[in-house]
Amino acid sequence: MNALGLVSVRLCAGLMGRRSAVLLPSLRFSSGMTLSQIDEEVAKLLQLKAQLGGDEGKHAFVLKTAKGTRDYNPKQMAIREKVFNIIISCFKRHGAETIDTPVFELKETLTGKYGEDSKLIYDLKDQGGELLSLRYDLTVPFARYLAMNKITNIKRYHIAKVYRRDNPAMTRGRYREFYQCDFDIAGQYDAMIPDAECLKIVYEILSELELGDFRIKVNDRRILDGMFAVCGVPDEKFRTICSTVDKLDKMAWEDVKKEMVNEKGLSEEIADRIGEYVSMQGGKDLAERLLQDPKLSQSKQACAGLTDMKQLFSYLELFQVTDKVVFDLSLARGLDYYTGVIYEAVLSQTVPAPVPTPTEQNGADEAGVSVGSVAGGGRYDGLVGMFDPKGRKVPCVGVSIGIERIFSIMEQKAELSSEKVRTTETQVLVASAQKNLLEERLKLTTELWNAGIKAEVLYKKNPKLLSQLQHCEETGIPLVAILGEQELKDGVVKLRNVASREEVDVPRADLVDEVKKRTL
Amino acid sequence: MNALGLVSVRLCAGLMGRRSAVLLPSLRFSSGMTLSQIDEEVAKLLQLKAQLGGDEGKHAFVLKTAKGTRDYNPKQMAIREKVFNIIISCFKRHGAETIDTPVFELKETLTGKYGEDSKLIYDLKDQGGELLSLRYDLTVPFARYLAMNKITNIKRYHIAKVYRRDNPAMTRGRYREFYQCDFDIAGQYDAMIPDAECLKIVYEILSELELGDFRIKVNDRRILDGMFAVCGVPDEKFRTICSTVDKLDKMAWEDVKKEMVNEKGLSEEIADRIGEYVSMQGGKDLAERLLQDPKLSQSKQACAGLTDMKQLFSYLELFQVTDKVVFDLSLARGLDYYTGVIYEAVLSQTVPAPVPTPTEQNGADEAGVSVGSVAGGGRYDGLVGMFDPKGRKVPCVGVSIGIERIFSIMEQKAELSSEKVRTTETQVLVASAQKNLLEERLKLTTELWNAGIKAEVLYKKNPKLLSQLQHCEETGIPLVAILGEQELKDGVVKLRNVASREEVDVPRADLVDEVKKRTL
Repeated sequence: MNALGLVSVRLCAGLMGRRSAVLLPSLRFSSGMTLSQIDEEVAKLLQLKAQLGGDEGKHAFVLKTAKGTRDYNPKQMAIREKVFNIIISCFKRHGAETIDTPVFELKETLTGKYGEDSKLIYDLKDQGGELLSLRYDLTVPFARYLAMNKITNIKRYHIAKVYRRDNPAMTRGRYREFYQCDFDIAGQYDAMIPDAECLKIVYEILSELELGDFRIKVNDRRILDGMFAVCGVPDEKFRTICSTVDKLDKMAWEDVKKEMVNEKGLSEEIADRIGEYVSMQGGKDLAERLLQDPKLSQSKQACAGLTDMKQLFSYLELFQVTDKVVFDLSLARGLDYYTGVIYEAVLSQTVPAPVPTPTEQNGADEAGVSVGSVAGGGRYDGLVGMFDPKGRKVPCVGVSIGIERIFSIMEQKAELSSEKVRTTETQVLVASAQKNLLEERLKLTTELWNAGIKAEVLYKKNPKLLSQLQHCEETGIPLVAILGEQELKDGVVKLRNVASREEVDVPRADLVDEVKKRTL
Repeated sequence: MNALGLVSVRLCAGLMGRRSAVLLPSLRFSSGMTLSQIDEEVAKLLQLKAQLGGDEGKHAFVLKTAKGTRDYNPKQMAIREKVFNIIISCFKRHGAETIDTPVFELKETLTGKYGEDSKLIYDLKDQGGELLSLRYDLTVPFARYLAMNKITNIKRYHIAKVYRRDNPAMTRGRYREFYQCDFDIAGQYDAMIPDAECLKIVYEILSELELGDFRIKVNDRRILDGMFAVCGVPDEKFRTICSTVDKLDKMAWEDVKKEMVNEKGLSEEIADRIGEYVSMQGGKDLAERLLQDPKLSQSKQACAGLTDMKQLFSYLELFQVTDKVVFDLSLARGLDYYTGVIYEAVLSQTVPAPVPTPTEQNGADEAGVSVGSVAGGGRYDGLVGMFDPKGRKVPCVGVSIGIERIFSIMEQKAELSSEKVRTTETQVLVASAQKNLLEERLKLTTELWNAGIKAEVLYKKNPKLLSQLQHCEETGIPLVAILGEQELKDGVVKLRNVASREEVDVPRADLVDEVKKRTL
């Protein structure tokens, strides 16, 4: 604290000396601050200093992106495009439409939907007008959209960025601005058919992305609640005990039990009863067995959940995905709005922690752990009703693909692979070995563009052939169309294969077809 | 004011009665307020009231999107996808890479880049940490990206949403959240080659979108400045006179002249001299003539601009686009950062004002006028240097496609057209005429999905054949694969063409190929 206190005093003095009427942002140094809070306050002061001109009297920009965000460079964009194509193809294969909603919503639209996480919502400044917040997920805007347009059934996907003022862990793909890829089915249908299709979709996407082995855990909010009830958990503690159970994928049972007993005030006996259930994993057979369980079968809720679980697995068998799906009683997703089946997909492989890059000054608690969950979702039959003036419900089930973690893995794979990621799709470079042929190069390039060929030409009057070939090597352009006095006279173009260096004269009229043929 | 004042008092009293510790947002009623400001304050109060539970004691949501924003429904998304595909194909044909940047930047990154328009920037609330603003365009983030990563040459496109607290005119495609499609070439190259390619790109995109006839106006910041100088405009008035000239596309010369003389304080003589120049339009010939102009040729700046203009037109001839490009001395784009050539594309057709829909409660000053500019850009050689700590410059030229206006036109065209816009790509619906065949339907659907066919199945145990056929009619699915006891016994599927109602039995093993063949 001491050293930092000094810095801030010096900064403030410097600032106030320059302009006395400056409006300082709330300076909030107190002994209760965390290190990251102090970092943020310092950043704000430095930013303010730069804005005011700084000590040197010249603009000293802090040249960075906002904390927890990143630019995508062309290579990352090429990977992103590839991942999106796989995911969108899958959504379309299942007959989904797509919608888009604004990046911000009325603040009240988000109010009361995220429980404790509401503190992570980004608010916009009150500049006159409505109070706005950046969207926190795509599910709440979707529910608002359905209620607002009185839509009672739709199968839609939505791929867009969402915003959370969370602690970033950038090398593990955890950002404050990140993509969500959501697929949801809204409508009153026969039980578990849309739910099973969501799981089929997760299965298809994770398989096609070739991220290694994975498992999809399934549970049901009603089974959890029934289990808590028959174990003797008081009603008002269901939710908090649920969030403790949710930690079982990161903590040992002993520690989870400790939290239940010491922090949440359960008796050891009750905790042990829960412990027995949450260690159970299986498939349809487990659902059948639990329907016979003398305790659990006394809960109507649990029975409804277990009957649906049985039904779900029979559909999953028809969809040929049961080899990766596990009925796991320890799965307990945090969000308040789930009402039925819930699921989460995890990759089996753990990804080694990469060395943090110098640009990643923002990185917080990076560590070499499993990337964990890459998809999750469930049924939320009450959310749309929260927006409808008359409370009319629209049953929904959906899944969200955790695309940023997938990008991280794909980027690391690309780093390790010898194959170069191309960032353009250019088929041919129009080049020349001689001087004063710019006009001829531009004319030929125009012919190619007009025929739909992806073509480039260097923006130099007289570039060297070597630098033209180098550009192809660097960017992966496979062909060069070389023009010279002789070629112009003969009405041909010399077409060169960059990799093999083989050259062949092609009649100008055939060039388009020849390029197409060679770059299929 | 009176009625409104009463309303606000009543609201406040109601609110304060319910909870005394409520934090009221700044209530800013004053006699200087505009009507739209009052509307916004009222909206804020109503919002607050709803949040607190309202008079009725139940949650009364304001079910809407934020002012000036809109959802995209599936039909609008289908149009958006089509437009993006045309634009992205063009960018890729010209060898462009793509990047992405965060939706918000450090506030200071945007400071001092937009002149008077800075007041339209959306700021985020200070929730501790950095001061952030939503991006206002894609050009400044691009320049920040180049400087931050020390990139000295790149050809990139960037399609993303930007944010302006402007007065929305939604039926004319003017929103507070809207897409920009930017293509820029950064790097030190021989004069006017990249500039000409930007114009070629605008030409290609507007042609392919089939929006009717268009013109691309071209001018140069240096020609404008030289013209002002030789006409006798004082240096310090260049910018303000420039913005008056910019109004010539909406105002008659007489009115523009009045503004110059009465508001900007020019003498009538000087204004008339400007008037002579800004009425000039032409091509390469005009540039050549003006290079001989006794007055204009005395300005070094103007000569440099005119020489480049000549060069530009000779490249445009090679690119075969001179039929739509006009050298127009009245073109004067507003943004501060342009340093050389500037351009703007306008559609010739005027679009009739549509009847405002009931959902468009936000609409402000809609009117049946020309959609105006649909693309614009220019050269900005100094912007990157503003971000580089050592002021190193990276010359840039770029173009931005005004995609929202294009969406508006395409949507209106789709409304008028008899052709139905499909929002899914489903090739076949798996159906059944008999009961108890859900399992068989799911099994067949799985076969189709696994073979890459886009297939749907209704989520009902026993749907009627009629409702299955109706779903196809409504969503444009061309084929139905019908299963029945007999078909299962025979190992065939009845494939029905929805439009022609023709049916044919296809051996199950051939179904995938048959569907592919019929939905090419």
